[in-house]
Amino acid sequence: MPHESCTFCQIINRELPASIIHEDEKVIVIVDLYPVNEGHLLIIPKVHNSEMRAVNSETLQHAMQLAQQMNVALRKSNIPCDGVNLFVADGEAAGQEIFHFHLHVFPRFIGDGFGFRYDRARHFKKSQRIRMDEIAAELKIKLKL
Amino acid sequence: MPHESCTFCQIINRELPASIIHEDEKVIVIVDLYPVNEGHLLIIPKVHNSEMRAVNSETLQHAMQLAQQMNVALRKSNIPCDGVNLFVADGEAAGQEIFHFHLHVFPRFIGDGFGFRYDRARHFKKSQRIRMDEIAAELKIKLKL
Repeated sequence: MPHESCTFCQIINRELPASIIHEDEKVIVIVDLYPVNEGHLLIIPKVHNSEMRAVNSETLQHAMQLAQQMNVALRKSNIPCDGVNLFVADGEAAGQEIFHFHLHVFPRFIGDGFGFRYDRARHFKKSQRIRMDEIAAELKIKLKL
Repeated sequence: MPHESCTFCQIINRELPASIIHEDEKVIVIVDLYPVNEGHLLIIPKVHNSEMRAVNSETLQHAMQLAQQMNVALRKSNIPCDGVNLFVADGEAAGQEIFHFHLHVFPRFIGDGFGFRYDRARHFKKSQRIRMDEIAAELKIKLKL
């Protein structure tokens, strides 16, 4: 169901301008208006869903296949691109800003100054194997439910 | 072809320990030893490829389907999880550290202190439509090649 106030629905319905790279029955691929680096793309399912859990699985898989193709296209282009990041923010706590699921694909180049902001006291600390095994056991059960 | 010095190949071959959540013919899903937050997972294709472009498309699609399932499992678990990020670093310039393609799935929670490090003078600046249209036109061509 398209949402009248959703920027991506408005783009899909041609009510807002967009620079479109690809469009098919499942998704649209556009250039991000506020890019990390030039060539930053968004792969957007046409059906409006805020959360990743609600997105049709085939559509998600198609988006991933397109992400690979866009990665290759970026590397073939004249846009500075030594590497590529894929990124999804699912939920406000994860940094989601437009509440219509989308997959970011953006080029990176050496010295681009972009990266993660983190705290060594909290993030990327080596885990204890016993805790990792507990997490694996819990998620294994939740995966089956 | 497995690479003897590759950490992920060694995990897949049971030559290094891992906390395994899921395994099938295409991929293995493990708990990250150096998590952003607790519950940080890696979805790793079994076939060794450094670059995303070389990964079998069906395997990539399967990884994305599993990422959705892992997202749901994390939210059902007791691990703090208000949101979820998906992340791929393809290439050293993109922050890749282990050169065997993998998809990160990690929980986020309000106040976790994690985010992007960027420079307002270079990143997330509003683009000019004329330049966005040029980028779209170039990538459209490169996508077809």
